[in-house]
Amino acid sequence: MCELLGMSANVPTDICFSFKGLRERGGRTGPHKDGWGVAFYNKKGVNTFKDPNPSHDSEIANLVSDYPMKSCAVLAHIRQANRGRISLENTHPFTRELWGRYWTYAHNGQLSEYKDLPYGPFTPVGTTDSEYAFCYLLSELANHYPNRAYSRKAAFRFIQKKANKLHQRGVFNMLLSDGDYLLAYCSTKLYWITRRAPFSVARLSDLDVDIDFTQHTTIDDVVTVIATEPLTNNEQWKKMQPGEGILFKLGEVVVKSGG
Amino acid sequence: MCELLGMSANVPTDICFSFKGLRERGGRTGPHKDGWGVAFYNKKGVNTFKDPNPSHDSEIANLVSDYPMKSCAVLAHIRQANRGRISLENTHPFTRELWGRYWTYAHNGQLSEYKDLPYGPFTPVGTTDSEYAFCYLLSELANHYPNRAYSRKAAFRFIQKKANKLHQRGVFNMLLSDGDYLLAYCSTKLYWITRRAPFSVARLSDLDVDIDFTQHTTIDDVVTVIATEPLTNNEQWKKMQPGEGILFKLGEVVVKSGG
Repeated sequence: MCELLGMSANVPTDICFSFKGLRERGGRTGPHKDGWGVAFYNKKGVNTFKDPNPSHDSEIANLVSDYPMKSCAVLAHIRQANRGRISLENTHPFTRELWGRYWTYAHNGQLSEYKDLPYGPFTPVGTTDSEYAFCYLLSELANHYPNRAYSRKAAFRFIQKKANKLHQRGVFNMLLSDGDYLLAYCSTKLYWITRRAPFSVARLSDLDVDIDFTQHTTIDDVVTVIATEPLTNNEQWKKMQPGEGILFKLGEVVVKSGG
Repeated sequence: MCELLGMSANVPTDICFSFKGLRERGGRTGPHKDGWGVAFYNKKGVNTFKDPNPSHDSEIANLVSDYPMKSCAVLAHIRQANRGRISLENTHPFTRELWGRYWTYAHNGQLSEYKDLPYGPFTPVGTTDSEYAFCYLLSELANHYPNRAYSRKAAFRFIQKKANKLHQRGVFNMLLSDGDYLLAYCSTKLYWITRRAPFSVARLSDLDVDIDFTQHTTIDDVVTVIATEPLTNNEQWKKMQPGEGILFKLGEVVVKSGG
């Protein structure tokens, strides 16, 4: 299996603290050593860093841990391969362009009969069940709205319905973003927390590191973090329910459904 | 304008030496300070590093200069903005998936009436003439071969014909790769060099750095580098002709046409 990490914020925020915790699970405190990746949106652009090597001792992960890249929408993944060999093309997150936007996605879980999923115009490059499912979701979306969806909220509602179908084929926890919205879909396990004023100190579970958010934020900041397992051990994370989807934008919940 | 750098090799080879020279032109020895990017293929996967900041003092460029990422197909770009503001979404190279492969592209030049270029299913995310032209090329390719091209050589031949049309609209020097093949198209300026045994010492033009390739290669290695301006000052680079396209694979010329 794998682990997911997402962030939605109302001001460009770096993810160094959370990523420092997550990357330890990629070969040190956890078994997810078969590659990792992270995508940072900056307006309509997206910057993705990927490495098929374990995150805990990756040179590229050192850069991501230490160099604060600020973003309002981030998604990250550490991989423990089940379907598809260890390789760059099988490393999450995956990205495709649709309607003049980059859509980025990462998956935790395992699907059966994924090769039967219809896809086109989007085609998998690698061999993971995850990328097949992503191509299926975006292809369904593109085919359902040949002239683009009348709103992006409608597009995400449509994706959530299709995610319910994938949930029936196995384990399908996933994050999907277009740079503004971030959809978190829970099949078995996903937690989230929204940090806002008054901020306090948070302590990582996987590393002897804490951060005093009062030193790094202003009173108006709203930052939501989503993760497979809580990343801190002194905060209350909310547990999502199987079949639940939450659509975030600028750190706030926009729509909650299912579950 | 901008500068291009490409590499095609028959063994995974790093591009640290050439990139060290190129990045200096992004704000120090050259005016191309409006962002930079580089894409490294690893089999069917592609790893892209981009930054809208000047390459000569970019943290991300430090990683690319110092950490040898090995690849058989690389393309890089440093930008001096003319069409489209300085932003991540306007930073080259651009990537799209078609037929289960990632196609990556970078452009040097300036096109007139680029907004008239027909595109779809691929849509620009940013506002550069370069990305419009890329979406035009891939859309024409996808529409011409609805069930994919019978060979990738045929696909690149088709792209070259369309590149000739873009050449008539302004300046269109470009690099385009699917990970195996790399097409270099010259509208005004592009140079290339193939290094093979017996290897010797090369000296950068932009920095007091030289490299003894005999220490880094085996007798069978073939490495071609393509650049807007020669990157070394003690080697013979070949100048491409306006309208000329060269398709490389594994460091060797596969097809040369036009010019």
